Amino acid sequence: MAHQWVKLIIAYDGSRFKGWQKGNGRTVQGVLEQVLITVIPRASDGAIHPGIYTAENLQLAGAGRTDAGVHAEGQAASAILPASVSLEALLSAANAELPPDIAIKSIIPVPDRFHARYHATSRTYRYSIITGPVGNPFRAAYTWHIPEKLNPEAMQHAAALLKGTHDFTSLTADKSKSNRVRTITDIHFEWAAPELHIYYTADSFLWNQVRIMTMVLVQAGLGTMSPTDAAALLEAKNRSLAPEPAPAKGLCLYSVSYKE
Amino acid sequence: MAHQWVKLIIAYDGSRFKGWQKGNGRTVQGVLEQVLITVIPRASDGAIHPGIYTAENLQLAGAGRTDAGVHAEGQAASAILPASVSLEALLSAANAELPPDIAIKSIIPVPDRFHARYHATSRTYRYSIITGPVGNPFRAAYTWHIPEKLNPEAMQHAAALLKGTHDFTSLTADKSKSNRVRTITDIHFEWAAPELHIYYTADSFLWNQVRIMTMVLVQAGLGTMSPTDAAALLEAKNRSLAPEPAPAKGLCLYSVSYKE
Repeated sequence: MAHQWVKLIIAYDGSRFKGWQKGNGRTVQGVLEQVLITVIPRASDGAIHPGIYTAENLQLAGAGRTDAGVHAEGQAASAILPASVSLEALLSAANAELPPDIAIKSIIPVPDRFHARYHATSRTYRYSIITGPVGNPFRAAYTWHIPEKLNPEAMQHAAALLKGTHDFTSLTADKSKSNRVRTITDIHFEWAAPELHIYYTADSFLWNQVRIMTMVLVQAGLGTMSPTDAAALLEAKNRSLAPEPAPAKGLCLYSVSYKE
Repeated sequence: MAHQWVKLIIAYDGSRFKGWQKGNGRTVQGVLEQVLITVIPRASDGAIHPGIYTAENLQLAGAGRTDAGVHAEGQAASAILPASVSLEALLSAANAELPPDIAIKSIIPVPDRFHARYHATSRTYRYSIITGPVGNPFRAAYTWHIPEKLNPEAMQHAAALLKGTHDFTSLTADKSKSNRVRTITDIHFEWAAPELHIYYTADSFLWNQVRIMTMVLVQAGLGTMSPTDAAALLEAKNRSLAPEPAPAKGLCLYSVSYKE
């Protein structure tokens, strides 16, 4: 069977998923694989019979293994399809079958052997906060509501100290990886009152790193931690000193970049 | 006890409520009353003791009895409070206690004997549709997803025929009211591709009227009903001819107006 490699861009509301990665419970990868192998026969104009092309053939791989409750606007995934599949027909058929909390935004051809995880050059995550005494019921599942005022200068200052190449042992829940050095190329703030969006870009992130960095920035904004405490925390390389991660629901995998 | 009359503006995500009206299950009115009577003692600087001021004293009345699954951005409600309550303190305390799917946007003083339902001069509802093959997971709970193209001219034409003063017997699920004449003062379309928002303004609406009118406009947009069929439907004054209501989740009580 002749094949084609593709890249999918996927959006999902993570509220009712146990994360991206297939395993126990309802996962984004599990739901996507099931729908794709169901509709591939339809999108191949009869060239592929139902049941022939399985999840093992598909080799669906996501760029970021988002945790339970974390959302995505621009998750990237790679997959291998039969050459006979029309990508346009697959996009329509898959979206018609997918539950309302997942959508495939695009499916495009890529060079053979493309892998969404290993070939990604950077990831951008967005963390969304809503401030002030009045929350927004329509954004409650996608934002962390903080009634207190946040000091933008203190947050900017702390963010500047986190940017760059550091050993992030103090800012991850990951105890397995030996190399915890990562390069944060950008942290920027978008104040769209009453919402604040913080965008983080890096080559890759450690487990819970964005949520823990967000908690550091929020504590700086509330004045319960000084920006220089953030620098001391990094220097200590001691996970037990780090604050708890910010809630999962405010986090969204915003985009993934590849070398063209 | 001296009293003050107030108007509250309330937003809620209706997904997990059995509508506004207190009764069986979790209702917006029920949750609001419970929170308000709990925080009134705190907002009165000790002048009101816990348990003294009850839901019966409060007389909370909503302008629109939204159904299960219907949202509100601008539900208006009236209530009677002890004169000793600080409205600013009540707003903060109530929002801190409310679940994330309800927020009180404002509480303002109004003349004695103000009633949010009987004194409302008009209501505006918004119905939101998302078109095209790709849905938006973050808007799935607040929009009706229609993959097909909708014809704007046909929808405008049908809307023009529904506007004005008519007997809406053919476009309501309400069999109890004897007078089913209502005046639709405005229907306007906001095309914010891929979303379409339809705003309906009237003195008041019959039960399910906005959702049934939306289904008529959608059928006109899909070409399965002609705009003149809509006029014939009105003329027939026969509920059994009307299409099913559009899904509740796309509907939102947008605002309520009062004479100044």
